[in-house]
Amino acid sequence: MSVTAPAGFHAAGVTAGLKTSGKPDVAVVVNTGPLRVAAGVFTSNRVQAAPVVWSRDVVADGRAHAVVLNSGGANACTGARGFMDTQRTAEHTAQALGVKPQDVLVCSTGLIGELLPMGKLLPGVDEALAAAHDDGGPDAAEAILTTDTHAKQAVQLRAGWSVGGMAKGAGMLNPALATMLVVLTTDAAVSTELADAALREGVRTTFNRLDSDGCMSTNDSVLLLASGASRTEPDAADFTEAVRAICADLARQLVGDAEGASHDIAVTVQGATSEEAAEAVARAITSSNLFKAAIFGNDPNWGRVLAAVGTVPESTAPYDPDQLDVWMNGVHVARAGGVGEDRTKVNLTPREVSVVVDLHAGDARATVWTNDLTHDYVHENSAYST
Amino acid sequence: MSVTAPAGFHAAGVTAGLKTSGKPDVAVVVNTGPLRVAAGVFTSNRVQAAPVVWSRDVVADGRAHAVVLNSGGANACTGARGFMDTQRTAEHTAQALGVKPQDVLVCSTGLIGELLPMGKLLPGVDEALAAAHDDGGPDAAEAILTTDTHAKQAVQLRAGWSVGGMAKGAGMLNPALATMLVVLTTDAAVSTELADAALREGVRTTFNRLDSDGCMSTNDSVLLLASGASRTEPDAADFTEAVRAICADLARQLVGDAEGASHDIAVTVQGATSEEAAEAVARAITSSNLFKAAIFGNDPNWGRVLAAVGTVPESTAPYDPDQLDVWMNGVHVARAGGVGEDRTKVNLTPREVSVVVDLHAGDARATVWTNDLTHDYVHENSAYST
Repeated sequence: MSVTAPAGFHAAGVTAGLKTSGKPDVAVVVNTGPLRVAAGVFTSNRVQAAPVVWSRDVVADGRAHAVVLNSGGANACTGARGFMDTQRTAEHTAQALGVKPQDVLVCSTGLIGELLPMGKLLPGVDEALAAAHDDGGPDAAEAILTTDTHAKQAVQLRAGWSVGGMAKGAGMLNPALATMLVVLTTDAAVSTELADAALREGVRTTFNRLDSDGCMSTNDSVLLLASGASRTEPDAADFTEAVRAICADLARQLVGDAEGASHDIAVTVQGATSEEAAEAVARAITSSNLFKAAIFGNDPNWGRVLAAVGTVPESTAPYDPDQLDVWMNGVHVARAGGVGEDRTKVNLTPREVSVVVDLHAGDARATVWTNDLTHDYVHENSAYST
Repeated sequence: MSVTAPAGFHAAGVTAGLKTSGKPDVAVVVNTGPLRVAAGVFTSNRVQAAPVVWSRDVVADGRAHAVVLNSGGANACTGARGFMDTQRTAEHTAQALGVKPQDVLVCSTGLIGELLPMGKLLPGVDEALAAAHDDGGPDAAEAILTTDTHAKQAVQLRAGWSVGGMAKGAGMLNPALATMLVVLTTDAAVSTELADAALREGVRTTFNRLDSDGCMSTNDSVLLLASGASRTEPDAADFTEAVRAICADLARQLVGDAEGASHDIAVTVQGATSEEAAEAVARAITSSNLFKAAIFGNDPNWGRVLAAVGTVPESTAPYDPDQLDVWMNGVHVARAGGVGEDRTKVNLTPREVSVVVDLHAGDARATVWTNDLTHDYVHENSAYST
């Protein structure tokens, strides 16, 4: 399933030896056509890994034949040599497929600042291409994992066409240590314009509203490949909705597997003057270490929620501090900027936590997902590279 | 010493029973004149505690006779009742001193969202006023602590005049859970204008460049009282420098006692086009949980430094990502955006850590201090209110 659920795609995941763990570390996804439509959204970090620079260029013409992905090394901050390695990977893949290097997307994830072992990677690519088949999606999804505890896959089935996808990591604009890589596939017959527009709209309210730990990766990439193999041209709105739905599914899976997390927290801000204002306030809350540590401690500390809300400039999100309401898991803990219902009524033992803030300033709303700040997060991220 | 080091000040710290620990929790600092000059800088959080709203108003005319401070309760998000409690505290103090309530500053620190036990606080104020004497600074410094492990005091001696100070907490624009409260005193004869200007300039490059955990308190206050008791009028530049020096001393002490921290990290960005650009890049690094967790693990993970630098928009800080240099404790770990000297040469076992980033874009620089992200930080902040 996953990326091979839609017709017109072959995939595989193999072990090339890039990871010291001996787990699979090279994946390919090949679009067998008839269309070779492609779209991509990439990290906004100015320090960009070589594969991001390469793939952004590849996808600019709205076409691609294949994606090569590796875990075990990010190929970021590796200079001209790193870029040449990405280019060589694309050329090697292109030659095997009989296409142009400019039609091969490349994604890498792992440690920053180390060169890829090309002597292992290129034979791994050969092996993956030889192994690629129309049910290889699950193997590919395994091969792109880093600190993830399990593969993330999703499918959206529609009348005569479908969208499949795989993901690894835990964030996007604000990803965790583990870069986020996402490959979506569809057998719908869509134009490059629709593919691009649907991907951007889908990412906007899903992956871009994850903020696991406030950090932004050098390698984040979300790709969409369309084969047209279903010979079905979906309505633009239907297609956009399917892409959004699969992005939301994968995003939720990423939050649920974030490094060291013990709670998945949905922060919803309503009553805002605009969606942007709601999102800004929600992000102020999801980026508060004090709030996130309190949730880890099962402590419904609404004071830390209000303190975070208060950091957003009035020009960004107008509201009256004396009108703020907060609900935690349905309990109205803060009312009109002050004490509300008894906080001890809040049960924070379930993994999923809901925090709702009403600004009482308008009708717009937005939800941003984050995780709690835990001992395991500190442990995993203080010991990762050593 | 501390706030009673300069002539013209009485202070005390007593136990009123606000803290369940039975430690001192109410302090007073009384300016005995002849001048009663005062200046204040407060949190920019829009959710402001009652004492911040009150004291900002008190100090607006550049005059104050006394400061009353309590730990054991922040009196934040406590509505009209909370504001009335602050006002009553000021009125009570003013009556005892024979001055106007509008000349009494109030500071509170502790948990948000709980009313102060006025039946304990007001008798505590009476006791503190009765106990206040010209060597009571150390007692006052003890009574304002919350999660601090020790009192922070400092003195700057000049020819014929001095500046003294006490502080609690760990941050300012971005303080830790524990609100930052600072009271500075001087026996210099200064105008309200000079006191205000010197305080703002002193805070700008010291307390405002602490970012212990990226959170901003509802209660942060930095106050300066001038008695004129030395009958000496210092040069404006000398006075400003002395205020800056004592702010820097206290700020460094706050970083050194931040909750759960095991490293004090000075992040210096040089080669920037402006001081604002340098500060923005430094703050991007000091707010990265991944970077801070790596330092906790004694891991010279320069990739996380560059990834954080890359999140700053070009409009804020122009630079070429391929020109970035990074030094960690003197080792040139990243050169021209890529791998530099062997990272294993970096010794991160000392508590103080230096990270220097050169943007190679101009001549401006700025330093921001932060702490590492530790198990103890998570522990203290997940268990605080329970």
